[in-house]
Amino acid sequence: MALFDLPLEELRSYRPDIAVPADLVPFWEETLSGIPAAADTVEFALVENSLALIDSYDVTFTGFGGTRVKGWLKVPAGVQGPLPAVVEYVGYSGGRGLAHQGTLYAQAGYAHFIMDTRGQGAGGSAGDTPDDHPAAGQNSVSGRMTQGIMDPRDYYYRRVYADAVRAVDAAAAHPLVDAERIVVAGVSQGGGIAIAAAALSQRVTGAMPDVPFLQHFRRAATVTDSLPYAEIAAYLRRFRNREEAVFGTLSYFDGTALAALARVPALFSVALMDVTCPPSTVFASFNAWGHREKEIRVYPYNGHEGGQEFHELERLGWLAAHFGA
Amino acid sequence: MALFDLPLEELRSYRPDIAVPADLVPFWEETLSGIPAAADTVEFALVENSLALIDSYDVTFTGFGGTRVKGWLKVPAGVQGPLPAVVEYVGYSGGRGLAHQGTLYAQAGYAHFIMDTRGQGAGGSAGDTPDDHPAAGQNSVSGRMTQGIMDPRDYYYRRVYADAVRAVDAAAAHPLVDAERIVVAGVSQGGGIAIAAAALSQRVTGAMPDVPFLQHFRRAATVTDSLPYAEIAAYLRRFRNREEAVFGTLSYFDGTALAALARVPALFSVALMDVTCPPSTVFASFNAWGHREKEIRVYPYNGHEGGQEFHELERLGWLAAHFGA
Amino acid sequence: MALFDLPLEELRSYRPDIAVPADLVPFWEETLSGIPAAADTVEFALVENSLALIDSYDVTFTGFGGTRVKGWLKVPAGVQGPLPAVVEYVGYSGGRGLAHQGTLYAQAGYAHFIMDTRGQGAGGSAGDTPDDHPAAGQNSVSGRMTQGIMDPRDYYYRRVYADAVRAVDAAAAHPLVDAERIVVAGVSQGGGIAIAAAALSQRVTGAMPDVPFLQHFRRAATVTDSLPYAEIAAYLRRFRNREEAVFGTLSYFDGTALAALARVPALFSVALMDVTCPPSTVFASFNAWGHREKEIRVYPYNGHEGGQEFHELERLGWLAAHFGA
Amino acid sequence: MALFDLPLEELRSYRPDIAVPADLVPFWEETLSGIPAAADTVEFALVENSLALIDSYDVTFTGFGGTRVKGWLKVPAGVQGPLPAVVEYVGYSGGRGLAHQGTLYAQAGYAHFIMDTRGQGAGGSAGDTPDDHPAAGQNSVSGRMTQGIMDPRDYYYRRVYADAVRAVDAAAAHPLVDAERIVVAGVSQGGGIAIAAAALSQRVTGAMPDVPFLQHFRRAATVTDSLPYAEIAAYLRRFRNREEAVFGTLSYFDGTALAALARVPALFSVALMDVTCPPSTVFASFNAWGHREKEIRVYPYNGHEGGQEFHELERLGWLAAHFGA
Amino acid sequence: MALFDLPLEELRSYRPDIAVPADLVPFWEETLSGIPAAADTVEFALVENSLALIDSYDVTFTGFGGTRVKGWLKVPAGVQGPLPAVVEYVGYSGGRGLAHQGTLYAQAGYAHFIMDTRGQGAGGSAGDTPDDHPAAGQNSVSGRMTQGIMDPRDYYYRRVYADAVRAVDAAAAHPLVDAERIVVAGVSQGGGIAIAAAALSQRVTGAMPDVPFLQHFRRAATVTDSLPYAEIAAYLRRFRNREEAVFGTLSYFDGTALAALARVPALFSVALMDVTCPPSTVFASFNAWGHREKEIRVYPYNGHEGGQEFHELERLGWLAAHFGA
Amino acid sequence: MALFDLPLEELRSYRPDIAVPADLVPFWEETLSGIPAAADTVEFALVENSLALIDSYDVTFTGFGGTRVKGWLKVPAGVQGPLPAVVEYVGYSGGRGLAHQGTLYAQAGYAHFIMDTRGQGAGGSAGDTPDDHPAAGQNSVSGRMTQGIMDPRDYYYRRVYADAVRAVDAAAAHPLVDAERIVVAGVSQGGGIAIAAAALSQRVTGAMPDVPFLQHFRRAATVTDSLPYAEIAAYLRRFRNREEAVFGTLSYFDGTALAALARVPALFSVALMDVTCPPSTVFASFNAWGHREKEIRVYPYNGHEGGQEFHELERLGWLAAHFGA
Repeated sequence: MALFDLPLEELRSYRPDIAVPADLVPFWEETLSGIPAAADTVEFALVENSLALIDSYDVTFTGFGGTRVKGWLKVPAGVQGPLPAVVEYVGYSGGRGLAHQGTLYAQAGYAHFIMDTRGQGAGGSAGDTPDDHPAAGQNSVSGRMTQGIMDPRDYYYRRVYADAVRAVDAAAAHPLVDAERIVVAGVSQGGGIAIAAAALSQRVTGAMPDVPFLQHFRRAATVTDSLPYAEIAAYLRRFRNREEAVFGTLSYFDGTALAALARVPALFSVALMDVTCPPSTVFASFNAWGHREKEIRVYPYNGHEGGQEFHELERLGWLAAHFGA
Repeated sequence: MALFDLPLEELRSYRPDIAVPADLVPFWEETLSGIPAAADTVEFALVENSLALIDSYDVTFTGFGGTRVKGWLKVPAGVQGPLPAVVEYVGYSGGRGLAHQGTLYAQAGYAHFIMDTRGQGAGGSAGDTPDDHPAAGQNSVSGRMTQGIMDPRDYYYRRVYADAVRAVDAAAAHPLVDAERIVVAGVSQGGGIAIAAAALSQRVTGAMPDVPFLQHFRRAATVTDSLPYAEIAAYLRRFRNREEAVFGTLSYFDGTALAALARVPALFSVALMDVTCPPSTVFASFNAWGHREKEIRVYPYNGHEGGQEFHELERLGWLAAHFGA
Repeated sequence: MALFDLPLEELRSYRPDIAVPADLVPFWEETLSGIPAAADTVEFALVENSLALIDSYDVTFTGFGGTRVKGWLKVPAGVQGPLPAVVEYVGYSGGRGLAHQGTLYAQAGYAHFIMDTRGQGAGGSAGDTPDDHPAAGQNSVSGRMTQGIMDPRDYYYRRVYADAVRAVDAAAAHPLVDAERIVVAGVSQGGGIAIAAAALSQRVTGAMPDVPFLQHFRRAATVTDSLPYAEIAAYLRRFRNREEAVFGTLSYFDGTALAALARVPALFSVALMDVTCPPSTVFASFNAWGHREKEIRVYPYNGHEGGQEFHELERLGWLAAHFGA
Repeated sequence: MALFDLPLEELRSYRPDIAVPADLVPFWEETLSGIPAAADTVEFALVENSLALIDSYDVTFTGFGGTRVKGWLKVPAGVQGPLPAVVEYVGYSGGRGLAHQGTLYAQAGYAHFIMDTRGQGAGGSAGDTPDDHPAAGQNSVSGRMTQGIMDPRDYYYRRVYADAVRAVDAAAAHPLVDAERIVVAGVSQGGGIAIAAAALSQRVTGAMPDVPFLQHFRRAATVTDSLPYAEIAAYLRRFRNREEAVFGTLSYFDGTALAALARVPALFSVALMDVTCPPSTVFASFNAWGHREKEIRVYPYNGHEGGQEFHELERLGWLAAHFGA
Repeated sequence: MALFDLPLEELRSYRPDIAVPADLVPFWEETLSGIPAAADTVEFALVENSLALIDSYDVTFTGFGGTRVKGWLKVPAGVQGPLPAVVEYVGYSGGRGLAHQGTLYAQAGYAHFIMDTRGQGAGGSAGDTPDDHPAAGQNSVSGRMTQGIMDPRDYYYRRVYADAVRAVDAAAAHPLVDAERIVVAGVSQGGGIAIAAAALSQRVTGAMPDVPFLQHFRRAATVTDSLPYAEIAAYLRRFRNREEAVFGTLSYFDGTALAALARVPALFSVALMDVTCPPSTVFASFNAWGHREKEIRVYPYNGHEGGQEFHELERLGWLAAHFGA
Repeated sequence: MALFDLPLEELRSYRPDIAVPADLVPFWEETLSGIPAAADTVEFALVENSLALIDSYDVTFTGFGGTRVKGWLKVPAGVQGPLPAVVEYVGYSGGRGLAHQGTLYAQAGYAHFIMDTRGQGAGGSAGDTPDDHPAAGQNSVSGRMTQGIMDPRDYYYRRVYADAVRAVDAAAAHPLVDAERIVVAGVSQGGGIAIAAAALSQRVTGAMPDVPFLQHFRRAATVTDSLPYAEIAAYLRRFRNREEAVFGTLSYFDGTALAALARVPALFSVALMDVTCPPSTVFASFNAWGHREKEIRVYPYNGHEGGQEFHELERLGWLAAHFGA
């Protein structure tokens, strides 16, 4: 995809006005207050994973609305902790995968926690957590973007962001994890959730969002035709009279608003030919990020795949420098 | 699309072996037994529809699991009944639409009942009925085809088929409807639901399924790449070890098995270039239909649009001949 | 389709310079003067339409060059007139359809006249009127856009616009029609023809063009790749030396020039993601419209489908307010 | 395109039953009898063509219905005749081109006559001949395939095939042409017209149809989705009740029927991956060809482009062997 | 992709006749005889890989024609050998990747050797080995499939297969590797190379080819349009007279011929909806495999992605059972 | 393709800053100095071409690195020279073709020399010249654009441009060629090579580049997604750390830098809807052209096909006026 968004020089200083609800913080405080502390609900079960070098724990904890959310904790086999930890959220349509997948941070010596995204996990990787909330079945276009979108209390990502905060707590509850060194990370949707977790959790000490989704919805809905942002326009294409309600709901979940609440260092990445998560939506949040120690790697010729293995090394380097295993 | 399925001569006699669960009938009896009689739950409210010649009633009745299901009843303005009725189910992703839409049968002098398909209605036409069952949020690919597909009790179409039976009861409860003359109808998904309703409801007296979806799943999943059947393969593409469970669930919902239970006359239609609902899957059910009075119109050069306005006249003619207004 | 045209704020005041031929009005006066008055040529024949509530008349009248043009007149069954009337023109490739189709305005209590578009009618709906003019067979790319495009006298839309004016006259000739209350309407090509009819007929009293085609050709030919505007570029792709002749011809048919001649109230609609009829071409004509009482409904997330059922209600409301049945 | 049609072994002996109208020959005799002899109507005008080695004559002759049909006659500059001649018909959507194009046979020492296809010529090459018959504007899908298709007398290719016969006569009327050695040729549509000319003209002494279009319509309409055969299915997709009329008309124009009437040697070519003109439709006509001296070159890995420059050499070799310049 | 190839029952016994050159074995003996023993040329250099649990060695050895071929050897950090080893070849367009990628077998306790594919490595993963043979620049279509295809001695895969044999030797030369337990593996092109290596190397003790490419070329070239097999047809599309030469060359590289030479146990996988490496081409080789201990996992609803993480576990299980770490 | 690049008015004066290496001229002097004079290496062999009016000579001369490069010299049969000559380079993926192809300039009375592009010639036309340089097999994406792109000395187009200069010399060595009147020409890649030859050869006396490729690489790589420019972005998509090296290499081959060195009259052409060779990249070079006598024909509605037969006449006219045969 040729360059289609703003030029890089403009992106560097792009700070759009976005609508932030007056009750953004109370909304999230109330959301989280209803979920029991993860330390009280989390279970860890060591499972066979066919790997000699890695131990995988099957994790279950209570998320929003009482849903039992699944995850993996992966650590170097037989390690003595506590270790700094990476809590990773996964990309759209994927799940936590199988016990032997996704071990990069563990290979590098970290505790690696991967959270299932409820209701997802039949796409890029397998998931095991249903979204058993009644609002999951509200009228929507295919996909998750518009489930419950007529009310912030019903919106799908309310449950997911809340799960994400508890996932950090769940990770912190394991004896091999150093609860003072927990970094959230993720690519695409995972990056968007990581931004939310960094904003809403007191435990997070760093964030590594890559080509994050769920940022600056107003622009995203009109600057790209690619899924999943296009689900918003698809919904409004039918329900022509719901534009204000839809963006009203989304304003509680916009990473660009949440990024301003973050108080930890961050390493972002962005790809300039990314039509899935357009660079202006990523820079909007990066520029709004609430901690001065922030960096962004720019991949000028990449699409949504972003920096991939090259950026894995960037992340490992940044982690080692800030929270070294 | 060029001809891609069996030749017409083979289709005429195509009677595949399909797996029918031993407890098919009890499964559905139990499913329906848990829902209160529609006569006790249905509400009709006359609404403004901008039309001088048609009266539209906003209908609400209790479907599976207590969900309040919406529909429309449309009749000639100021008519004296009782009228023969058509209960129509809608195509995939659509809903009941607005009060002034979908009045063909009412214009022709029938009572016309349109049922919302729960959870759908953000696609081709607007819907108002959420699928508020906890299984709605189970891990699935985008779309409804694989929601709850690991267990027949959780499967999405269990709720929809059950709603469909109650919709017939709800229609019958209105004083303008002649409860002895109720025909079910629908195109694509609507046709598949109509087949199920004809098989499972004692009240139905005729059926008009067009290019029906939800038939002969085993073949459908491998003979076409088109959505929504392709959702099945997409699910199994990830969950490679769930093939038997998936088709085990689907066997309770396969129109080819249900068609054999039908005991009323039917008018089918099929299109030979239809890659969405391939002709062999339609003929499998037509050939299995359990009543000797059955006809099928074949559209050789059409895709999934089928006979459209030409077939509307076929339906009106068949209705008039069998259940004339 | 993401937003690709001018921003809405610029569209609101977009008034491009377009080339208007000095003899635009005489050209059309001469064109129309050669056609006999519709009252002398029109025939109405009541036909069976399978509908209890609607009467359908098969209409035939003499259009440009002596062609016998077909149409339908649909009215509430057994109604006493006279009724206000809507004369509707149809979208590209479609025809007047069958006798039971397209009854919305009749259901709402209006006389509803639908004109066949000569030569079209093998696409979205069936037509019955050939374009039996010798220029119909001139060298052209597939489609109607470039038929006879080397001379305004030979151009396809000369015949169609002239037919459209006579269609209004033909409608006015029926005793059930109130000749003082005739509104022209149409979607896409139908909207473009409605603009022309409103500009060129003295009988029209209102216009409802939706996402109109045939506007601001110069811009349309370079701002979109979508058919049918792309037929112009396809023609010039081969005949590289005919640019001036082509746009010279088109200047007699450009809705942006004709809109300025209109002297009746209008309700427009436009969709901001419409690549078939780009919003700048629609606003060019709306902003040029020659009557101060004009409104436009903007559908920001829609493509060429525009407002559909939501806009049907807008039209019915506007009609009732201005010309109420 | 992978192999999609019959295997080559089956193609070699593929002789389908096709419906041949009882009055096929009289129909064409009557058609041709109404056109004046080309010798009486043809005009040749030497024009500037920028080429030192080739002389180009602008040709005009009277075709079906009095239409003045254009063509080129190209010969070696300053040549003394008479020369054997190739009369070439052009592919779908193209025209005769400009005076300096298409000189291959002239470079090889032949007289080269290229006929315009009426109404076409805004596609692959420029044309100058309108189809000024009233039936040209009958309701049809985009393209020429369905113009006038409801009646063999109105059908577009009636006029074209008749022109093609007269084009042979026109070529024969030029003093540089040896009227005893005239070969018809063409690619795709041009090949189909060449087959018709070989069948219907007494003057033709050889034929070189390449990947010919307009053969075995019944099969063509269902074995491929590619244009232009797909225009037939597109027409029947709307007009569901016209299948018999359409194929009734086409039976007068089917190259598979006409090939049986041919009495001259032929060199065919076919490409096995050709989805535009599927190999079974080509072999149907080749196998039916009415002269024992016939050859076919098979290009197994080519699509509709066929043998191109490799087959040009085949043609030049075959010409030299049979009608050597 | 719907099922497009033979039904599974036929695949199970599909044993096509393929042309095997009489000098197949001598050809390969001569090819390999010209390359020095890897033990004499290989170099291993431990590099920083950012991983605590894995040691990565940068490997260089001499392949065909003196080219210095790169690879990685990855082992559990600080392990004491010797370990059973997996030699992996990579998919089309990819290279060996970076030092921290592709560690699955090492995590499972094996020595993991990944060979660069010369000239490739700008696609799915990065490579570092040029194909510095003069034949690399012969006329070809884009891609590697037709480089040097006019002569088996010049053909690209001659160099690659030869490298692959030496890669096994190179792995065996490392002290941490148990030279008696070396399994070759790979997906797609990697699977095809693994089959060749198993056939041509005396050191290999097992093979795990997944959805292998480079099998049964004659069928592959006509049963699918997908790249890279389609490069063959693309080449023959231009060079219509080279069919025999091309397939003559390919007969020396056809995995279906080579599989018959294999004398070690094998675990294959195949996907029934795989249009890139169609199932009949895979079964042709599996059925021809020259050792009785062979298994194949069938993924009925997958395309070329095959079994992915589910099949990773199959491989790890098979490895443990046969060559357990 | 709709207009997507700068407006024509801006294109007319578009003069971007591009990076020109300080050693651009020495680099090329050194490159050329290593190749023997063509007069010493060229061979001409008259071959049979099936054409009566044209003589074709099979040409072989020594190009870069000793490669024997092929070409054709085509002249009017039996002509007495010397004739002005056109040296033509061919488009991407094509070769010199067969002996009877590509005779336009010879038909017009010129000597016509067509050079093979080494390594290409399996695409649009057949070629016979391998690229037997070791760098041909370096890691690259499919296509030629990135072969050897890490070093200007290894880059593919270094060899091609050098061949192109020697091709002019080779043409000049034939007795039928007037060495004082040699014009270089070509379309797309051929146009880009012609620009290079005009800049680097002292013998060239005119240039006719059409829609030239290989201009203003920096912009080309981000303004279009179309191949072959997209090969650059594809390469950088994988090798994220090579951006500077890649554009450093390309700066020695950028037609926009080379055009400034040209000292002969030129006729350019450009198409405003050309996504393969975007108009801004063409105008960048046209505006930089180093001779005041320059013209450009603009085709506003064309894509990469450009002016085709219309522009052929432009070229013949320009040739006749400047170098008349």
